[in-house]
Amino acid sequence: MSHALLIQSATLITPAETYTADVLVQGEHIAAIGQMLTPPPGCAILDGRGKLLLPGGVDVHVHLDLPMFGTVSSDDHYTGSKAAAFGGTTTLIDFISQDLDPLLANLEAWQVKASACAVDYSAHMNITRLTPQVLQDLPRLAEVGIPSIKVFTAYNNRLRLSDGDILRVLRVARQHGILTLLHAENGDVIELLVAEALAAGHTEPIWHARTRPAWGAVEASLRGAALSAQADNAPLYIVHMNAAGEADMLRYARQAGLPIFGETCPHYLLCDESLLARPDGAKWVCSPPLRSVADQQRLWRGLQQGDLQVVATDHCPFFYDGRQPIQYEGSPVAIPGKELGRNDFTKIPNGLPGVGDRLPVLWTAGVGSGKLTPNQFVALTSTNPARLFGLYPRKGALLPGSDADMVLWNPQHTLTYGAAIAQHRTDYNLYEGMPLTGWPEKVFLRGQCIVDNGNWLGQRGGGQFLPRQRFERPQGL
Amino acid sequence: MSHALLIQSATLITPAETYTADVLVQGEHIAAIGQMLTPPPGCAILDGRGKLLLPGGVDVHVHLDLPMFGTVSSDDHYTGSKAAAFGGTTTLIDFISQDLDPLLANLEAWQVKASACAVDYSAHMNITRLTPQVLQDLPRLAEVGIPSIKVFTAYNNRLRLSDGDILRVLRVARQHGILTLLHAENGDVIELLVAEALAAGHTEPIWHARTRPAWGAVEASLRGAALSAQADNAPLYIVHMNAAGEADMLRYARQAGLPIFGETCPHYLLCDESLLARPDGAKWVCSPPLRSVADQQRLWRGLQQGDLQVVATDHCPFFYDGRQPIQYEGSPVAIPGKELGRNDFTKIPNGLPGVGDRLPVLWTAGVGSGKLTPNQFVALTSTNPARLFGLYPRKGALLPGSDADMVLWNPQHTLTYGAAIAQHRTDYNLYEGMPLTGWPEKVFLRGQCIVDNGNWLGQRGGGQFLPRQRFERPQGL
Amino acid sequence: MSHALLIQSATLITPAETYTADVLVQGEHIAAIGQMLTPPPGCAILDGRGKLLLPGGVDVHVHLDLPMFGTVSSDDHYTGSKAAAFGGTTTLIDFISQDLDPLLANLEAWQVKASACAVDYSAHMNITRLTPQVLQDLPRLAEVGIPSIKVFTAYNNRLRLSDGDILRVLRVARQHGILTLLHAENGDVIELLVAEALAAGHTEPIWHARTRPAWGAVEASLRGAALSAQADNAPLYIVHMNAAGEADMLRYARQAGLPIFGETCPHYLLCDESLLARPDGAKWVCSPPLRSVADQQRLWRGLQQGDLQVVATDHCPFFYDGRQPIQYEGSPVAIPGKELGRNDFTKIPNGLPGVGDRLPVLWTAGVGSGKLTPNQFVALTSTNPARLFGLYPRKGALLPGSDADMVLWNPQHTLTYGAAIAQHRTDYNLYEGMPLTGWPEKVFLRGQCIVDNGNWLGQRGGGQFLPRQRFERPQGL
Amino acid sequence: MSHALLIQSATLITPAETYTADVLVQGEHIAAIGQMLTPPPGCAILDGRGKLLLPGGVDVHVHLDLPMFGTVSSDDHYTGSKAAAFGGTTTLIDFISQDLDPLLANLEAWQVKASACAVDYSAHMNITRLTPQVLQDLPRLAEVGIPSIKVFTAYNNRLRLSDGDILRVLRVARQHGILTLLHAENGDVIELLVAEALAAGHTEPIWHARTRPAWGAVEASLRGAALSAQADNAPLYIVHMNAAGEADMLRYARQAGLPIFGETCPHYLLCDESLLARPDGAKWVCSPPLRSVADQQRLWRGLQQGDLQVVATDHCPFFYDGRQPIQYEGSPVAIPGKELGRNDFTKIPNGLPGVGDRLPVLWTAGVGSGKLTPNQFVALTSTNPARLFGLYPRKGALLPGSDADMVLWNPQHTLTYGAAIAQHRTDYNLYEGMPLTGWPEKVFLRGQCIVDNGNWLGQRGGGQFLPRQRFERPQGL
Repeated sequence: MSHALLIQSATLITPAETYTADVLVQGEHIAAIGQMLTPPPGCAILDGRGKLLLPGGVDVHVHLDLPMFGTVSSDDHYTGSKAAAFGGTTTLIDFISQDLDPLLANLEAWQVKASACAVDYSAHMNITRLTPQVLQDLPRLAEVGIPSIKVFTAYNNRLRLSDGDILRVLRVARQHGILTLLHAENGDVIELLVAEALAAGHTEPIWHARTRPAWGAVEASLRGAALSAQADNAPLYIVHMNAAGEADMLRYARQAGLPIFGETCPHYLLCDESLLARPDGAKWVCSPPLRSVADQQRLWRGLQQGDLQVVATDHCPFFYDGRQPIQYEGSPVAIPGKELGRNDFTKIPNGLPGVGDRLPVLWTAGVGSGKLTPNQFVALTSTNPARLFGLYPRKGALLPGSDADMVLWNPQHTLTYGAAIAQHRTDYNLYEGMPLTGWPEKVFLRGQCIVDNGNWLGQRGGGQFLPRQRFERPQGL
Repeated sequence: MSHALLIQSATLITPAETYTADVLVQGEHIAAIGQMLTPPPGCAILDGRGKLLLPGGVDVHVHLDLPMFGTVSSDDHYTGSKAAAFGGTTTLIDFISQDLDPLLANLEAWQVKASACAVDYSAHMNITRLTPQVLQDLPRLAEVGIPSIKVFTAYNNRLRLSDGDILRVLRVARQHGILTLLHAENGDVIELLVAEALAAGHTEPIWHARTRPAWGAVEASLRGAALSAQADNAPLYIVHMNAAGEADMLRYARQAGLPIFGETCPHYLLCDESLLARPDGAKWVCSPPLRSVADQQRLWRGLQQGDLQVVATDHCPFFYDGRQPIQYEGSPVAIPGKELGRNDFTKIPNGLPGVGDRLPVLWTAGVGSGKLTPNQFVALTSTNPARLFGLYPRKGALLPGSDADMVLWNPQHTLTYGAAIAQHRTDYNLYEGMPLTGWPEKVFLRGQCIVDNGNWLGQRGGGQFLPRQRFERPQGL
Repeated sequence: MSHALLIQSATLITPAETYTADVLVQGEHIAAIGQMLTPPPGCAILDGRGKLLLPGGVDVHVHLDLPMFGTVSSDDHYTGSKAAAFGGTTTLIDFISQDLDPLLANLEAWQVKASACAVDYSAHMNITRLTPQVLQDLPRLAEVGIPSIKVFTAYNNRLRLSDGDILRVLRVARQHGILTLLHAENGDVIELLVAEALAAGHTEPIWHARTRPAWGAVEASLRGAALSAQADNAPLYIVHMNAAGEADMLRYARQAGLPIFGETCPHYLLCDESLLARPDGAKWVCSPPLRSVADQQRLWRGLQQGDLQVVATDHCPFFYDGRQPIQYEGSPVAIPGKELGRNDFTKIPNGLPGVGDRLPVLWTAGVGSGKLTPNQFVALTSTNPARLFGLYPRKGALLPGSDADMVLWNPQHTLTYGAAIAQHRTDYNLYEGMPLTGWPEKVFLRGQCIVDNGNWLGQRGGGQFLPRQRFERPQGL
Repeated sequence: MSHALLIQSATLITPAETYTADVLVQGEHIAAIGQMLTPPPGCAILDGRGKLLLPGGVDVHVHLDLPMFGTVSSDDHYTGSKAAAFGGTTTLIDFISQDLDPLLANLEAWQVKASACAVDYSAHMNITRLTPQVLQDLPRLAEVGIPSIKVFTAYNNRLRLSDGDILRVLRVARQHGILTLLHAENGDVIELLVAEALAAGHTEPIWHARTRPAWGAVEASLRGAALSAQADNAPLYIVHMNAAGEADMLRYARQAGLPIFGETCPHYLLCDESLLARPDGAKWVCSPPLRSVADQQRLWRGLQQGDLQVVATDHCPFFYDGRQPIQYEGSPVAIPGKELGRNDFTKIPNGLPGVGDRLPVLWTAGVGSGKLTPNQFVALTSTNPARLFGLYPRKGALLPGSDADMVLWNPQHTLTYGAAIAQHRTDYNLYEGMPLTGWPEKVFLRGQCIVDNGNWLGQRGGGQFLPRQRFERPQGL
């Protein structure tokens, strides 16, 4: 007989509604939502009065255990997913590198590592070398529940596909219900600017931003839209949008009827490029780089007006100083990190921690400031990504039959945030010292409480692999 | 012990979600929504498979038993509410004329007649004469559950208030949580054009349209917005929007941050002014008049993009030929109607039937054509009006605790629509011969089935007066 | 034998071109523009090197000798036109009040006073009472060279026409090539707010602004556009635009294809309402009132982008303290002015000096700042108004055959501006202490130099009445 | 003693003005414009009454004697410039291929051929291979009067530069006052689509259009804008704009303040891609290809609203059937042409005749239809290109001191146009049978009449090489 839980009188937040009800969980699913529901025999009861109940966060952009520049992103599938859970996120989508042939072999290799996840998980497949065989293998991805791939217009000679190859990929993807993610920057220009900067002896972190100009992201976004159109309206999802002009182009393409979607990340909303000029600027080196305050404002407006649909994290943490161990689950850990680029900005591992920060930080900065409604917050962080990536209504919803992934959110809880509270396996936090109001007190994964007021009740391998459905354009997105 | 009903496996449609679940009704309310809910003892069970379940329609703009031009609108509170129910609408908001002093006396008089309603009901108070006493009495309306009033910029010397008086009304309304409805046309211009038309011997129905030009509605809409702004952002709801430029101005005012909302009606979406040039043109005489096909397109776009929030009906039927009786509930009925204006378009009673047509006709024309999603349909016809007029989540929602006002909608049901099917007490229908796909098979009012596959199970007086909450701007509207 | 003048090697500024050439004037007209023109015998020669040559300014909005509030605007036709000339303006259009019957009698009365003008002049006819006879007399205005009239939506019971009457006026005006000017504010609202302010004991100048809100100007502008449309696209010219939203509405109406034009004035571009809160706030009382800095920015943008076509002045000066005489042409002059409203803002005469300030102040603030090109400056202050008001190419152009109204402008001349330099017959200047770069050194009226480096060479009555051509929409405006 | 000519009472058309005057030409220049000018002794006199006088056309985009696909464009510098003159164009800018090293050697080689021109001429330098030496030589171009270069994002492995190389070129160009022209299409995508089409056996001309999709032009235009921005706002001129979205992007970039300009050609305004599906579709094969009617409409709107600044021709004619000789100046001529691609659309020489059609065809289609004013016509075809390319006011103007390049235009002259009238050295015309109203009756080059009512008075080598000024952004463009 299955486990039962009755959450009484919490206020449910969905993309469209805010209402108070009882939620009955039976086993792994939400069984009923009602008024004064009768608990079945043996049912646990939780008083939700004064608390909000949100669907568990869905972060569709994380990089766990990612090798880079001779080191590796400092959160592996277990530690990263645990940090996610602490921040109210119960579903992750990671990325699989295209290292092996055939294509599906990469998935198998990834599964081994990913099975350590403490929350539910899936992955996108990077397509960074295109051969006829790869094109032929693409449809298999959708069959095995991985209906999303990622391509790059940057990183010449490493990750970039030519525009023609992206077009070829998009066509096959469209035919098989696969959503293509795009990293939109101009590889040629970056390569030139980087070479010039190094030649001129510019080694500081700020040159990371100066060599990856915003206009390159803007035109590459429209280039993606053009390729989508030329592939008979292949669906396209532009990751980590960072520049005002990208939002303009997304809007332009969407108004032209193209099935194009956009994601941004908390750091593009809250941090700006001036941080890279600080002595510890390496802490903020990510790609694409942070932009200006004006860019931030346009991105916020894009979220408010529906130009962008998703807030994810691009979580890819590195130690600021990987020579100094930190304590993690009782043991010292040190992983080479940003210090690798002390003397050369091109050697600073690119990436920022964020998977656990996303919900608390965005709540305070977005909902607390009045920029977003709680309902928009849920849509952007849970429902929309679940819908776009074939997980809805299993994830992203508080509906009967949905997985009982839920966050009991205390909107009154105040705290000062930072690395000591965040559970990322790294030695710094982007939002160190930020006062927060609103906090995920309890986090449920398929009916099980895995985080309870700061106590970890989850476990390595507690997550499940989520085979996802093929892409269909969600109504209203 | 209260009545219980379990609707199993219907597909619920809400503004944001489409999902299949069981709905348990206990007494007058929705008690629970869940998966395979257990029916309590004695519970009736209804198989909802293949059907949609919608919240009952909310029509916030009807004129029942309205005296005009020496006759009266041909649906009284009973017949009009019965027709509404047949069309899936379970809440009506009527209008109270300002005939008596003090202001509240009009409410009492209206209550006597309105108590015949077969569905739940409320009313807006017309403010057509402004005295200091009336201004002083306004707050009382909110106290007694009537937090909405209507003003006119047209009908000089009859209904119109001066711009200054509208401003005075808006200020008081804002302070007391009262939403002001605006009939936006230019009374001066209409008066001039009508006098000129009559002087020139133009008596045909088409002159009704020609003497009420669209530009007058456009500027009066912006004038309303200006008055709202000058009244410290008093909320304003523009009724029966009919012209493209009105939608433009609504968008402009909303982008300026003003709390302004817009309603259109099915006849402005589906009928155009060329109909008034037909020999039976009087059938389509309403105010404001029908407009052009380009106006229709802009209004549809306004619904799609969120410029407009509500589709109501302005239901105000008259017989086309009130000398020829029809059968109604077994007896012959004839009420003087459009024929009064045979020789003078200014004597044609203004108004159209529509309260029962709204959901079926809009479903086919909007959802069937792909212009609207089912979710948008529900938002426009039920949830948004309930939210704007202080009825949510009691009405307009399929949530635990909400009134069990529900429509079991058969999306496959096809029929040829017209007066023989519609239940309006009049002798014609605007949509005669229109093929429909989608139909309200069962209609529930607070848990009771009042329409069952074309059979009337409701009763005169079966509706309840709904005291409404004061206006607060709903999130996202 | 006629007077001849050769200006050698000045740089001519026209709306489209900047070029250096010789200009030969014979008699009152420009005879030729060329390279190294041969001076005819006896020809005067002027070295224009390093100087700009502009067509003389055309100010289409001045009020000279205007009775108001028991006093009169302090510049009469001679003093005002002299001040205009000092500022580089050689054509004025004044207003004729509708005091007498029949309509044309007012023109005759005005001619007597206006003949004192020292520069060329015309007038618009105010239409502030509409009778059948007035409508019938309107076409006569065009016949006698006065093809422009002005109507008001403000000043209830004084100047305002009802919307219906404005419509009637517009129709006749359109048919006879008469351009209608509109003062766009909402009289009802102003009347209410003024009465309330006085009742509350608010007597300070700032209440002048507070009782004439910008939104009223915005909606009245669109109302004007609607009436223009309803009058079969009657041409409309909105005077003294002051609010951002007015520019928006002008743009909207123009994009809808309506023949609508807009004017603003330097004080709306350079002064804001905070000035009215100063102890000497009465100095800045004009109608419509000064607005916010954001409004200023939108107006500048409107000039840059072509939303607005004209910069005029609404020159209507009053003494700040009419009890203290100033010296004017060697004699003391004192005319009751702003002090009349010391204790009651509604008694402050409405109006500002400006006719002489327009070119020098706009040059520094517009051209000097890079907001406008010299060519746009000429278009806005001379060519466009001449074209709209039936004076082109006689006025507003540097073309062979045009009247030789020219300003020799020294773009290097710097000075500190103020009442001591301006020639208005009043005791203050809006731009006191403003540093200017660029100055009209010589001003020519029909070939005669009337201002020469600050010396007055003109004369009372030296101006001519200009019969104007009927309105035709100028290409490109 | 120099030649003199007095044109009396023609109506001059300039970008801003339309006025009637006498024009005195002395030697090669306009000496004076005036009223009733006195002719110097021995001066020729021409009666211009009823005729328009336009500045001679400036066509900044022609390809004369261009080798392609084993043949050559069928107009050489003499025949092409003669055809230009017949169509009212007196200045041409050709292109120099980058065949030789060093860069300037190409100019010398071109000068030999170009000296045959019968009208004045210059050239842009193509940059299609970038070496450090080429970058170093670029500034020399401006020094020798060739301040404009052209780069391509299409034609992989032939003409295309990488985005990084374009950026490098733009930077140097900006620093030296060189304007960069951009051919904006996506080479990668075209290469892929062409290969696929051929592999699928698609050989017909319509596949030329299908393999060069409009979206590629759209994104490449924005890419160009991005590179311009990244090169510190290097000026950029996008040639032969053909797609609606290109105009949108041009507008976007210009509103962002970038110094970007756009050109379209008559064939993109008047012909659409359906022509390529005709049996003689090869006649309309050009690159970029013809687009849709909706694209045409947007381009017209772009000309009207100032998004685009220039109408040039991309004149590059080929015989439709180069096996059938035509008579040219009394001798048979046949040059291999479109028939080369009978069995393979990739072998059809790309290019269309047009240099002579431009003014007459655009006048009828643009001015005659009311889409453009005569003033806009002059701006687009003569003044704007002269200003952008460093030729103003020597060319593109009717001003004293300007070259006396003038067209006496008869706006009443009607004719049926086609190859028999056009003077291109080819066997067909795009506008065969088109009725025209308006015709260049006399064409003057530096004061000499070179075309007189269809008679050729010009001569091989009669044109002069025009050293051009460095780029400065013209005010208002």
